[in-house]
This record gives sequence, structure tokens and C-alpha cells, in this order.
Amino acid sequence: MYRTNTCGELRLANLGQTVTLAGWVQRSRDLGGMTFVDLRDRYGITQLAFNMETDAALCEQARRLGREYVVQATGRVIERSSKNTKIPTGEIEIEVAELNVLNEAKTPPFTIEDLSDGGDDLRMRYRYLDIRRNPVRQNLELRHRMAMLVRNYLSDRHFLEVETPMLIKSTPEGARDFVVPSRMNPGEFYALPQSPQQYKQLLMVSGLDRYFQIVRCFRDEDLRADRQPEFTQIDCEMSFVDQEDVLQMFEGLIRHLLLELKGLQFGPFPRITWHDAMRRFGSDKPDLRFGMEFQEVNDVVRGHGFGLFDSAELVVGIVAQGCADYTRKQLDALTDFVKRPQVGAGGMVYIKYNADGTLKSSVDKFYDADALRAIADRMGARPGDLMLILCGPAMKTRTQLCALRLEMGSQLGLRDPQHFAPLWVVDFPLLEWDDETQRFYAMHHPFTAPKPEDEALLADPSRWGDIRANAYDMVLNGNEVGGGSIRIHDRTLQNQMFHTLGFTDEQAAAQFGFLMDAFTYGAPPHAGLAFGFDRLCSVFSGADSIRDFIAFPKNNAGRDVMSGSPSPIAQEQLDELCIKVDVKV
Amino acid sequence: MYRTNTCGELRLANLGQTVTLAGWVQRSRDLGGMTFVDLRDRYGITQLAFNMETDAALCEQARRLGREYVVQATGRVIERSSKNTKIPTGEIEIEVAELNVLNEAKTPPFTIEDLSDGGDDLRMRYRYLDIRRNPVRQNLELRHRMAMLVRNYLSDRHFLEVETPMLIKSTPEGARDFVVPSRMNPGEFYALPQSPQQYKQLLMVSGLDRYFQIVRCFRDEDLRADRQPEFTQIDCEMSFVDQEDVLQMFEGLIRHLLLELKGLQFGPFPRITWHDAMRRFGSDKPDLRFGMEFQEVNDVVRGHGFGLFDSAELVVGIVAQGCADYTRKQLDALTDFVKRPQVGAGGMVYIKYNADGTLKSSVDKFYDADALRAIADRMGARPGDLMLILCGPAMKTRTQLCALRLEMGSQLGLRDPQHFAPLWVVDFPLLEWDDETQRFYAMHHPFTAPKPEDEALLADPSRWGDIRANAYDMVLNGNEVGGGSIRIHDRTLQNQMFHTLGFTDEQAAAQFGFLMDAFTYGAPPHAGLAFGFDRLCSVFSGADSIRDFIAFPKNNAGRDVMSGSPSPIAQEQLDELCIKVDVKV
Repeated sequence: MYRTNTCGELRLANLGQTVTLAGWVQRSRDLGGMTFVDLRDRYGITQLAFNMETDAALCEQARRLGREYVVQATGRVIERSSKNTKIPTGEIEIEVAELNVLNEAKTPPFTIEDLSDGGDDLRMRYRYLDIRRNPVRQNLELRHRMAMLVRNYLSDRHFLEVETPMLIKSTPEGARDFVVPSRMNPGEFYALPQSPQQYKQLLMVSGLDRYFQIVRCFRDEDLRADRQPEFTQIDCEMSFVDQEDVLQMFEGLIRHLLLELKGLQFGPFPRITWHDAMRRFGSDKPDLRFGMEFQEVNDVVRGHGFGLFDSAELVVGIVAQGCADYTRKQLDALTDFVKRPQVGAGGMVYIKYNADGTLKSSVDKFYDADALRAIADRMGARPGDLMLILCGPAMKTRTQLCALRLEMGSQLGLRDPQHFAPLWVVDFPLLEWDDETQRFYAMHHPFTAPKPEDEALLADPSRWGDIRANAYDMVLNGNEVGGGSIRIHDRTLQNQMFHTLGFTDEQAAAQFGFLMDAFTYGAPPHAGLAFGFDRLCSVFSGADSIRDFIAFPKNNAGRDVMSGSPSPIAQEQLDELCIKVDVKV
Repeated sequence: MYRTNTCGELRLANLGQTVTLAGWVQRSRDLGGMTFVDLRDRYGITQLAFNMETDAALCEQARRLGREYVVQATGRVIERSSKNTKIPTGEIEIEVAELNVLNEAKTPPFTIEDLSDGGDDLRMRYRYLDIRRNPVRQNLELRHRMAMLVRNYLSDRHFLEVETPMLIKSTPEGARDFVVPSRMNPGEFYALPQSPQQYKQLLMVSGLDRYFQIVRCFRDEDLRADRQPEFTQIDCEMSFVDQEDVLQMFEGLIRHLLLELKGLQFGPFPRITWHDAMRRFGSDKPDLRFGMEFQEVNDVVRGHGFGLFDSAELVVGIVAQGCADYTRKQLDALTDFVKRPQVGAGGMVYIKYNADGTLKSSVDKFYDADALRAIADRMGARPGDLMLILCGPAMKTRTQLCALRLEMGSQLGLRDPQHFAPLWVVDFPLLEWDDETQRFYAMHHPFTAPKPEDEALLADPSRWGDIRANAYDMVLNGNEVGGGSIRIHDRTLQNQMFHTLGFTDEQAAAQFGFLMDAFTYGAPPHAGLAFGFDRLCSVFSGADSIRDFIAFPKNNAGRDVMSGSPSPIAQEQLDELCIKVDVKV
């Protein structure tokens, strides 16, 4: 037996017990007469004490222990003379009688501390050492706990976790598939699933009624920051439900997580239509931890000779409360912010509503005090507030103002990561026009049902952009953490949808044939939803990056710098697979 | 709302309630005045009643419902006049007031009954209909329940489920990898994991202490019956443990499953060394549901002029109790059985110990009554028993007799699938000689530690075959359901092991470099185990095939006949991936 206890569990109640601990040397302090070693494992740190007077040889041995050595120590639990109140084991220490080095360790390339001196690249390369650090390990512990809570919650509600295949059929629609050459079927390929969408719908046709799976998914996209080629979904589907049933069920799940993990109680989540979300916050995933709603002011700004405003499709602003004293420098920085290519605005107009009731703006040339006051009134600003206004094409300007709103929220400390603001965004558009390819795409996916009251519009291509979908997203603190829809279970409507998306019958049959066939054998009404599990973990933890919640993530080039994958493979392997590498240099 | 209740929950207690049910039409019976429809969902079957006198139109509508139509019915719960005691809802029926066809259905290609008329191929092709059948659905329900029990058991014992990558580095050792071309890194490939072995060991180096994962694994092997290219493991690893800790922990897990799923209580599992298992049962996965242990008889059969026995390395037999009255035909069939190419014996000797005490054998020419009695005594046979004896090279003969033992066990009904006999097989050989390549291979894998007392033998190549590993398998009813080992955590010993396996330093570094590097930074003693989850489900269910426990399995050619994968992909996809298909016709 390697240990009787972990390094996190001994207390004053254990005084006098002889124990054996095993773990890593966090640090050692040689105080001459005494040497102290902090022994660490996943559960905590316990101090080992070595006395030069009692056992000089043992103490010498302890002095030679390097950082991260793996050791085993046996001794008696004694009370510490100088207690450490910062750790649960801080009132005791082990008077070591026997010390055993289980494994030596090279000095790690960065410190194993909460705030490490290691840069990102180094920590990724030695990820196995990075995970020894509390913050990274705690992320993985949170992820585990969250997965357990999700599974038990859903299982208690009769959801069955069903494992769907990873080697599936490739479909050209959507993002790029990763493919896997089949040796047994030369010239043919499997694809790795972008999601188990079709399988979960088949399981509804199978009568499984309620399905879920915490499942790995794959997308061969050019990786932007914080995208991973493999990611994890909490994938769910239910039969004989309408939208209300689905929202209730999964709102309940997130409420359960917020209670269990954060101790927070929530009532019903707010719901907002996609159109309202865009109009009020310029985003389909508004951060509701703070207000600062959009104020449209076209009519009050018009007719004062300011051409930019007069000609703009939309003039819209936000009120930053208590920011009237922003300096020139601060305002310039905000202007620079909106002008950055990532935001792309042409400029920004500000109006200060000074505490003394006077108004000062960047467009005083066009607007006198009364005019400014009219704008301020319309925007609901009060003395002490700062108004920030953008103008231009409606949708573009909203997106820009959304960036500015989030920036102001951050600057004003309104985006506390330990404050949670969940909501549903509903009534998404069914179809999205793509200028480049000059066709409509499914905003969600081709199986999403239109709202019954909008179904008739499918007959009129000029109205396709107006059709609303029975689709919903769950948004948490400005992140889309989940999304789903009512599915089309009627084959005729599904065919109509495929035609709308520009599929020929042959293309639809080639890609979705087996699902469409299945639908002719008695498909129940069904609906579902998937949560991005990596993202959900990061939002719950209040972190920005999903990478910190994945044990072994890949970098932006899709590489695992620790293992050195991907890598070339042997010629015999290629030959067996009947493929040739064909890299143009 | 589509339903107020499921089809499995209404009872006499619900009499008089107005309910809405939704489900599939299992069958309908038109009795003239009354029409009855059995409505089915995952939870059960409820009878819908339509009365020609009360509502002729509605009754007409009911009569037109086809099998597997999806319908919704609203009505009052009433007591049935002729009760069906076979189903929990059999005392009530629904007096339907409103009927709504949610979806029509084509007639399914096979009957949705417990005993279907559909052949294997047809049921695979329409797997989504096959899953509607109780036996298949119940398999998936068992799998879900088992996964939940496993996760909660391990989580309660501080195991963390950590998701390891699916896109990993290819390693030529072991079975063939499935590979995934990387578009972002042309000419390079990821591999799909055959197991998360290296990652779980890294997590131990990370100090995670206890890891598990129910995880998909992939092997590109020529599929034999009941092998799948993708399969699921319960993968586990622990730090600071010896073999006893591991056996206790996972024996506890299986005991927990046997109790929760089967209501069976077990004490400590028997343990048997690999050598003993081979000697006593001719198998490293003995079926202990019955005895019929091997009896070696070389010395008692020798010197009677029967050259075959005299010259054989091993003469070994089993006693089939109460089978002395086997007919000539039965005995010939057994001889044919052992002579089948899959078994490969040259022949079989039988000795009948008749109830009257006389003995009769197929080798009476060489053995008189006394000689036969001596053999019978040695084998522990009693009047009424049948002895079956094989001879030849030791290991080969044991394997052949193992097949015969299992066959006799089956014939005699000693292999009841609802009887469970778990055991541990321990002390496996570390290395296995391969005649073809003339080298030793790791029997388990290259990270398995030798037993400390056998470590010295590594210095002597002539003794390599004798080295025992700290490796263990869990066997249940003749199936290896799990296996694992103590890992080597010492880098010097690991290097020695690599050399023993014929790796150059360069090869070892190229394949396992990052793991070996990790080991220099303080690797704890660790050990682990993995259960084959598909197999575990099938054994618990008493079924032979793992395919029945996988929602969407592939056939022996690695094809999913339902979706038609694998399949060719578009030229543009190949171009983007910088590969060419190169099939020699």
C-alpha cells in the first residue's frame, strides 16, 4: 500500500496517528535545525517535518529532494507550532520517520504554481505538467462534475444516453468533414461526425423518445482563436414535444447546474425574439448581465444638417451611465475601438450629459442644446451620463454598436464572470441569404421546422427571408451555450425545404436519403437541442477560453505540440489505404 | 402538448381521467361493433377503444389506421371488460373521443415484434425500425443504465472522467490505426485512438490521481465475427496503487453492477494465475460457471502400446458427469467437433464409466479394464460419467480441449446466461514469442511492468518467456471483460523493456517520446485497467453478440448498410486534403 491518506485530508482530529502519504514535492525549506517539505497531491498539500536533531540522516535526505520529486513518507501526525490558516491541513504536519523517493524529477520548465511563469506555448508543450497546477486541474474537475450533473439530471428524466457512430457517411453540406480512408473498402471514406444530428433524429423514429449523449464532434475548419477541431456537445432530442416542452426541460437543466455548481437560484429564464435581440442589443447572443440597451434616434437627429445622420439607414446609440466625465483621451480610445477593422465603424458620435445639466457633443456644430437634450431624452439619458452613437446600414451598425456596448460593459465592470444572466433567444429566421453564392442557406440546419404560421411563405421566394423558424438558442453571459429546433417530421415539408435550399431530389436523396426513408415509416414529432460543452464549462467558470477546459487541446494550426500530431505516416500505411499524398510545393 | 401520459403508465387508479396519449399503432382489431388499437411507445402499450355505436366516424377513422402510424388519442380511462394480465396497463383502456394522425407510415419491411420475421441484413438496413422492437431497445436501455452505474460508482470514489483527444498521433506498433488526413498540415495525418493508453498515463503524471473515461476506440482490423471497427471502453487509471488496490476497486465495480442490475451478491472474486488457468481450463478466460477441469493423465496412460498417447507431450481429458450413456452418434459428433478446422484436433478418445461399473472406451485394444479404471480414478470419474481425452503438443491440446469443454458445458446446459461466474486471471506472461517475426512482443503492452521478483530475468534473453507481468484480466462467463496492468513508471526499466521488444532508441523516441519525456518529470507509480463496454453489456444481458448492444453497428466489411458508409468523396475534398485515391483494379 502506497498511502494511508491523501495530502488533503489530515486534520487535528488525526493527531498521533501514524500515516503514510505519497505525492510530489511542492517546495522544501531548510531552516537549519528543521527541514520542511510541502507534499502535494490532487487533494491538497501536507507539510512534512524533518528534525536534524532527531534523525540527521533522514533530514539530509529530505534536503536533497528536488521540486516535483515523487516521494512517500511515513510518520506521526503532530500539531504545527506555526499554523497555516490558508490550507485545510494547515494545523498539522507529519513528523517523518521514513522517507522513500518513488521517482526523481527533472526541474520542470515552469513553476507548478497557481500563477505560473510559463508562457502559453511552453505550458501546452508540457501540458501534463500544466495540469498539475490548481487552476487547470480545477477546470477539469469542474468539467467532470458538470458532466455528472448533466447525465444524472437527464437520466432521471428518462433520457437514454445512446452512443452514435464516429465513423459515418460524409455529407458535403455544412462545414468540412474530417474523413477517414477505409482500407477494407478502397477508395471510400468515412467521415467523423460534425454532430450526431441525423442519428439522433433516427433514434426518435426508433421510438427511443428521449435521447442524450455527451459526444465528441469534429469540424475541419480554419481555426480561429478558441476553436478546436474536436469539441464536445451535450446532444439531446425528444419526441412528442413542442417548443415549450423543450425550453422548460433544458432551462431546468441549466437552472440545476447553476444551483449545484454556483449556489444560485433562478426563476424562468427571459425569452427574447431574434429580431428584438438584434434591435435592442445588436446580437443574437446578448449579454444581459447589464442593460445599456440600444436607443434608435433617427427621427430626433434628422433635419439638423448633419448629412451622415440624415442619410443613415439607422442612427442608434447607447447610454453609459455616469460616464459624462470621460476624458478626451478615453473618448478617442473608444473611437479607435469602433474603427478597428474587427468592428469596422466609420466613426462615433458622443454626447456628454454633464452633471450640471449642460450637454456637450462631438457634433455641436449641428446640434444646439435643445436638439441634444431631445436626443438625450429619447435615449433616456440623465445628467452624468455619456451617450455613444453610431450610424450606417442597420444590421452592420447594430453589430458595431454591440461591440461597443460590450466594451463599455467591460470597462465599467458590468460583466462580472460570477454573475449569470441566462436567456432564450427564439424565433430565429429560418433562412439566411448568402450574397456570395446567391442562395439561401438554413440558418440552423435543413431539418429545422418553420413556425406553422409562416409555413405558407415557403411558396413565395420573395418572402423566404421573413420565415421564422421554430428554433431557439440558450444564451449565457453573451455566449451561445446551446441551440436547437423543432424538427420537420413531415416528408412533404422536408422535401419543400430541400428545394428551397437549392437541393435537387437526387442531391437530397444522396445526402439525406436514409433519414428521409426513415421518415416514411412513422416519424414522431420531435425536437432537440445541443449545448457546446466546452463553452458551457468555460462560462460557468467565468473564463474566456475553452482551451483551458480541454485536457489536451490543439493549437490554432490544429496541432498537438505535446505529442507532435498530426505527423507523416509510413508508405506501407498509405499503400494499404490505397491513397497517395499529393502535396504541391 | 402532445401527451399527458406515456403508454406505459395508466392503471386502475387513473379511472375516469381524461388523458392524451401519443405513440405508434402496434396493431388494431376490428370486432365489428368495437375497434381496438394497441398504442405503443418506449414505455409500454395502452389499448385504445373505439365504439361504432358511440361515434361511428371516429371508429371508421380508427379502422383505417395502418401498422406503425403515429397517432395521438384523447379520451377517458375506463376499466377493461377483458383484462390483459400480461402488461401493466392491461386493466384499463382509453375510450377515445378524439383521434389525430400525426404521421402515416409505410408498412415496415419486418414485423415490430419481440420475435421479428426480419433477417439480420434487413434489420440492419432498417436499424431504426429494429430499435423499435423490445429486445433491441432493452439492450440500449441496459447499456445506458450500466454506463450511469459505472460513472456514479467511479465518481463517488474520486475518479475524474477526462476526455482525451480523438485526433492523436499515429503509432505503427500494435493493430492498424485509422488515420485522418490533416488539411491544415498537408501530407500529415492524425490517427484515431486504439485506446487512450498514453493519455491516461500522462494524466497520472499530471497528478490527476484517478481517471476514468467511457470512450470510443478504433481498430482497423480485418473484422472477424463480432468485431467492430469502433468500440467502447471503460478506461481507468489510478496512481499510488499496487495490484491489490486495483483488483479491489474494480472487483467492487463489477460486484456493484451485478447487485444493481441482477440482484446478485458476490463475495471476493476467485483469482487464478495464467499458468493455472491454462493448465486447468486450457484458456486464459475460463468459464467457471461449471467445473469439468482438465485432468492430465500422461503417466497413467503411458506404456500400454498406444503410440499416440506414449509420444504425446500432453494427454489430457475432461469428465462429463452422467454422460456414460452417450450414443455412438453423439460421440461421433463430438469427434467431428474437435476435428473441425476451428478446433483442429486429430481425434478424440472416450472412456465410458458405465453405471454398472464396467468401462468401455475407443481404445479398448490398448487398455484393459484395470488400465481404464486407473485412468478413471486419476480423472476422478464415477460410474455414469464419460471421459473425453485429447493428446498432442501441450498448449495446442489444451486449447482444443478447452473448446470441447465449452461445447460439453453448452450441451449439458451448464452455461446458463443468467448465472454469473466472475474471476481474475493474474500473473500473465510479460512477453509472447512470435514465430513469424522471430521476436518477442508485449503480451499486454510495452508499458506493463514485470513482477518485481522476475525483473532480473530481463537480463537473460533465454528466460524472457518466463517473466511474469503485473497484469490481470477480469473474466466473466468465459469472456475477457476487462484487463490491465501495473505500469512501468521508471524510465530505466521502460528503456530496458523497449530494447527487449526490439525497439531502437530512435524508434522508441519517435513513437513514445513524449510519454517517456513526461516520465522524467516525476511519474508516480500507477496502474490501470480497461473494460470492453460492448462485451460487458452483452455478457450481463446473457447475449452472445456485441452487435446487439451497439445502436448503429457496422457489418463484417466495416460497412453501415443503413447510411451507406463508407462512400466515395468529392474530388474537391481530396484536393483540399492533398491526397489521391490510388486503387489498383
